[in-house]
Amino acid sequence: MSDNLYDVAYNLEKALRESDDYKNLKQLYSDVNSDESASKMFENFRNLQLNLQQKQMSGEEITQEEIEQAQKSVQLVQQHEKIAQLMDAEQRMSMLITELNKIIMKPLEDMYGSMQ
Amino acid sequence: MSDNLYDVAYNLEKALRESDDYKNLKQLYSDVNSDESASKMFENFRNLQLNLQQKQMSGEEITQEEIEQAQKSVQLVQQHEKIAQLMDAEQRMSMLITELNKIIMKPLEDMYGSMQ
Ligand SMILES: [Ca+2]
Ligand SMILES: [Ca+2]
Repeated sequence: MSDNLYDVAYNLEKALRESDDYKNLKQLYSDVNSDESASKMFENFRNLQLNLQQKQMSGEEITQEEIEQAQKSVQLVQQHEKIAQLMDAEQRMSMLITELNKIIMKPLEDMYGSMQ
Repeated sequence: MSDNLYDVAYNLEKALRESDDYKNLKQLYSDVNSDESASKMFENFRNLQLNLQQKQMSGEEITQEEIEQAQKSVQLVQQHEKIAQLMDAEQRMSMLITELNKIIMKPLEDMYGSMQ
C-alpha cells in the first residue's frame, strides 16, 4: 500500500476515534457494562436476537413462545434509558460507517459502473 | 457526520483514486474491455464463477461437467496476459480495501473487544 493511502487511512481512524459519535457510543457502552443489571439485560437481549437470526438463516422454525420472548426483551431494553441510548448510538455509528464506506468505495463503484 | 470525518473520508477517497494500485487496475480494466475477444473471455469466466457460487450457496449439486468447464475457463483467462494482470490487480485492490477497513474499524474493534 502506498504511504499516502496508509497515512490518510490512519487520519480517518483518528477522526473516527475523536468524533462525538464514537465518544458517545463508548461512554454509553461503559455505562451499561458497569451496571450489572443493565449489562445482563442487554446481553440477554443480544443473545435472543442472535439466536433468532441464526434460526432464521438456517431455516429452523421459530416458535410463538420465542417470538413473544423476543418482543418482551425488546420492550424491556427500550424502557431502560441507558440501553435505549446505547442502541440509538450503535445505530448512528452503523449509519456513519455505511456513509464512510460509500465515500471510500466511490472510485471502485465509478470504475465498475462505467464498464457495464 | 462531523465535518472533519467527512473531510477525511474524502481525502481517503482521493488518495485511493490517485493511488498506483487504482490507476493500474483502471487501465487494465479499460484494456481488457476495449478488446472484444478478451472482454468476452473474461465475461464468460465471471459468469461461470458466479453461477457456480450461486449453486454452491443454494446447495445445488455441481456436475463434473461444470467443474471441468470452470477449470478450462480459469486456464484460458490465466493464459491471457492482460486478463491475468487484471485479475492480479483486482486481488491487490481487494487486499488493500481489506487493510483500509481494518485500520478504520480499529476504534470499534477496540471498544467491543475491551467489553467482552
Ligand atoms: Ca455517562
Ligand atoms: Ca495499457
